[in-house]
Amino acid sequence: MAKEVVNVEWMENMAFKAVVNDHEIVIDAVDNVGGEDRGPRPKPLMLASLAGCTGMDVISILKKMRVEPDYFNVVVEGELTEEHPKHFYKMHVIYEFKGKDLPMEKLKKAVSLSEDRYCGVSVTYKQTMELTSEIKILD
Amino acid sequence: MAKEVVNVEWMENMAFKAVVNDHEIVIDAVDNVGGEDRGPRPKPLMLASLAGCTGMDVISILKKMRVEPDYFNVVVEGELTEEHPKHFYKMHVIYEFKGKDLPMEKLKKAVSLSEDRYCGVSVTYKQTMELTSEIKILD
Repeated sequence: MAKEVVNVEWMENMAFKAVVNDHEIVIDAVDNVGGEDRGPRPKPLMLASLAGCTGMDVISILKKMRVEPDYFNVVVEGELTEEHPKHFYKMHVIYEFKGKDLPMEKLKKAVSLSEDRYCGVSVTYKQTMELTSEIKILD
Repeated sequence: MAKEVVNVEWMENMAFKAVVNDHEIVIDAVDNVGGEDRGPRPKPLMLASLAGCTGMDVISILKKMRVEPDYFNVVVEGELTEEHPKHFYKMHVIYEFKGKDLPMEKLKKAVSLSEDRYCGVSVTYKQTMELTSEIKILD
């Protein structure tokens, strides 16, 4: 059974040192809650996880399709509930591409394969919230 | 309505540069899937998100209770499904403390307040998977 383990050690105040696959990430709060903004807040890491997961899927599927964009950026917007504990009830993923003669049908295919078949982060989040997406080809 | 946004831009191969609350994190795959391990994998960031969220809750609740441990570390173990897309179906959180005469009842209270009332990452994950925890006082 595959298992992943992270260690997140308290440094001081609200700062923690996360060790994730042997890479260090400092996580911290903003100053109005006692932090010093030495690193990201915990909750947006949920968005980075989704963006990285689907981004890797899409770029590797496109490579197999012999499509290589000049630029590829994944934006994830997460909407938080008003009630406490504030948590994401909706996420929207924007896949942004730049490149000459990019084939929209292949981009759509790569995105839908990630969303429906490959991304293990999407599959979790979809069970608890609305997950939408769009593709943008930028100039 | 509060919103969080992250940008995760493709660098090359499987490497992406995430910008999370203005802090950069490189996310990458391992070499057997075309990456170079320049940063963590996307999925374990879900675990770091949970650990940071509950860690900040616990340390700030303990501070209000006038309990300051010498050491505090949050381990999150995530179990992945065998079937694809592989995703977490269970997480276990281990709260590790060191310190002189730490009051177990207060540690338990702080952890349960985070789990049940404060942590907006737990509240999401609990809806889709089994989430368990334990407290360890280390020598």
